[in-house]
Amino acid sequence: MKEVIETGDFDFYPVEHHIIDSSTDGKKVEIKWSDGHLSKFHFIWLRDNCPCCIHPDTREPIFNIVSMPDDLLIYSVSTTQEGFLEVIWSGEPHTSYFHPGWLRSHCFDLLKKPFPEPLTWDSKNKKEPDRFDWNEIISDPKTERKWLYSLVETGCSIIQNVEPSKNGLIQIAKRIGVIRETNFGLTFDVEAKTGPDTAAYTEIGLPPHTDLPTREYQPGLQLLHCLKNSVKGGESILVDGFRVAEEIRLKEPETFDLLTSVPWDFGNRSTLTDYRWKTPMIKLDNNGKIEEIRVGNFLRVPLQIDFDLIEPMYKAYKLLETLNHDDRFKLRFRLEQGECLIIDNRRILHARDSFDSSTGERHLCGCYIERDELWSSIRMIERRNRQKRMNSALNQ
Amino acid sequence: MKEVIETGDFDFYPVEHHIIDSSTDGKKVEIKWSDGHLSKFHFIWLRDNCPCCIHPDTREPIFNIVSMPDDLLIYSVSTTQEGFLEVIWSGEPHTSYFHPGWLRSHCFDLLKKPFPEPLTWDSKNKKEPDRFDWNEIISDPKTERKWLYSLVETGCSIIQNVEPSKNGLIQIAKRIGVIRETNFGLTFDVEAKTGPDTAAYTEIGLPPHTDLPTREYQPGLQLLHCLKNSVKGGESILVDGFRVAEEIRLKEPETFDLLTSVPWDFGNRSTLTDYRWKTPMIKLDNNGKIEEIRVGNFLRVPLQIDFDLIEPMYKAYKLLETLNHDDRFKLRFRLEQGECLIIDNRRILHARDSFDSSTGERHLCGCYIERDELWSSIRMIERRNRQKRMNSALNQ
Repeated sequence: MKEVIETGDFDFYPVEHHIIDSSTDGKKVEIKWSDGHLSKFHFIWLRDNCPCCIHPDTREPIFNIVSMPDDLLIYSVSTTQEGFLEVIWSGEPHTSYFHPGWLRSHCFDLLKKPFPEPLTWDSKNKKEPDRFDWNEIISDPKTERKWLYSLVETGCSIIQNVEPSKNGLIQIAKRIGVIRETNFGLTFDVEAKTGPDTAAYTEIGLPPHTDLPTREYQPGLQLLHCLKNSVKGGESILVDGFRVAEEIRLKEPETFDLLTSVPWDFGNRSTLTDYRWKTPMIKLDNNGKIEEIRVGNFLRVPLQIDFDLIEPMYKAYKLLETLNHDDRFKLRFRLEQGECLIIDNRRILHARDSFDSSTGERHLCGCYIERDELWSSIRMIERRNRQKRMNSALNQ
Repeated sequence: MKEVIETGDFDFYPVEHHIIDSSTDGKKVEIKWSDGHLSKFHFIWLRDNCPCCIHPDTREPIFNIVSMPDDLLIYSVSTTQEGFLEVIWSGEPHTSYFHPGWLRSHCFDLLKKPFPEPLTWDSKNKKEPDRFDWNEIISDPKTERKWLYSLVETGCSIIQNVEPSKNGLIQIAKRIGVIRETNFGLTFDVEAKTGPDTAAYTEIGLPPHTDLPTREYQPGLQLLHCLKNSVKGGESILVDGFRVAEEIRLKEPETFDLLTSVPWDFGNRSTLTDYRWKTPMIKLDNNGKIEEIRVGNFLRVPLQIDFDLIEPMYKAYKLLETLNHDDRFKLRFRLEQGECLIIDNRRILHARDSFDSSTGERHLCGCYIERDELWSSIRMIERRNRQKRMNSALNQ
């Protein structure tokens, strides 16, 4: 517990390397670790992250950059008997103590991506989503970790042996985080309905699409849990939208430029609501990396762009849709009762074949969760692993 | 009702102009209207928006661009007795009928922004958020419209005479749309608490911030409803983040470049969750327009960027924070019992002065809604207005 408070936040930082030397020129600190690794830290960053300048309960920073003295510098650094880095400040009567485990884990040269990169797939290198057993997920932290990482990497997974009920769905959702309610409800029932307000609630086949591209914030994760599936037809189809986008980028760069720069009009209207969003179908991040896909033939409203762009944009859309419908990119499988499909809705398109209600029943129950709930869950698993490593080191 | 179905969607399109002439070169249609206005429509766009190619229940498009014949062209156009545009297709045995009201409202030359642009403000041109009376909002559609447009333009408003309870808050939220639940709950109580998990739940002053910059999707709207406020202190402060960003763009363009391009580390950790998001503090859209602000001194985790960027980024952050704290940009007011403050959380920063719980009680109840719920509400008001215009024309 002492160690936790000393690091300033709620996390755990096992001490696996010791500071054997530290020096400063007043503006940066250089540290040599017991394994020979060298780190350097900037004085403003160290001042900002002083572990005593946090609120004792919330553990949130209370240091305010606005009131930092202009002449602040480091007066001296040294290592305490407990192995902490002691920083005495000049320009402000303050001393900071940095926990060696915390400091090492924040070394700027060791920074790495917190999560694995997406591993894009097509029907050649993937046949079905990875499957996991619900009882193993809730009883074995290693299986849970494997499941969550698989979801980050491949953008899809199936959990088996889930209670075939709305309650079964909610259990999985709550394992990850908070459900995002929409105008379709906290959860929604995908079955052939009377007076459907969207194509999903009919028997017709659904073309590959993301859910709610019509919203400013397209839901991050979608869960589709199979309560009943005895109909003829209704097979599930997934397409890795990032993989299709990569193909277009490689083979039709001009089309890719249109799809990533010209906004497209999405919409979903009912008698009660009128959601619309206008944005390119493929979104790139600041570094040009593919970040998000929006597509849904039935979730469009009339395109409103410059007249001269209409023909090239429809041509680009046709290419995108042609590839989305190409078997080269499709995973096709049958979701069985008690199986819950989870997809990254900002990357993976889903579709279904039409089905015939007279041959049986088909009933899925779905919900949405933000994607950062998944990332929070992964961080918490890693935090608990660090806690275990720390405790086992303390007990040795 | 006939008219509604003929336009293909759920909206209403009063016929205020008639088609007096139409012609085609096979690829585009030119229309002359009774007021002299000219429109042109592209053949692919018209084919895509054929009002009979929608699902009869969901009113969603079922035309699929992938199966459009390569040799599709317009064979002829004419005006029907009812005033509809008739398009006979070549390359496909199909005829489309376009409703004149619908067609006119989609004229490419008359396209306009669906919503007013943000009118940014500082303490010189604005003293307090616009105030509206809850009973007038729910009884008078014109007041409701005025309220919603004011919220879009100024990014903030106060509703008065609201039942000072959680129920009062939920009534307002549901008037706009679906509440976005977070790890802080469906609604959250802002008061001094034992064991607070964030600074909001203490007595300390809160610096100007947006809520949950720590999430991939920063909530669009925040509602803060005052149930009790009898303490000394605890005044409310708002800052127009777009206005501050404009100031930096104008006066310190290099700093603006850093704030819009270098990602910043936000985070909110508790014993149960670990939300983090890394993104620039000021986000621009594809056209360089300021789109979103994220800021919250207490909602940060240690910055992890290239070592060489640390000093310039802290300098940029200091400037941003200095301006956010500058009285030139602040609205300051006291939220009274029964008043509900609503802000665009991706634009407007909010803050509060510290207060002293021994002098009375201060209890706000808050929740989040996505911003596009607001836009959907505005579209529905405009749709009802169009319905009224149509009905009154039909009755004449």
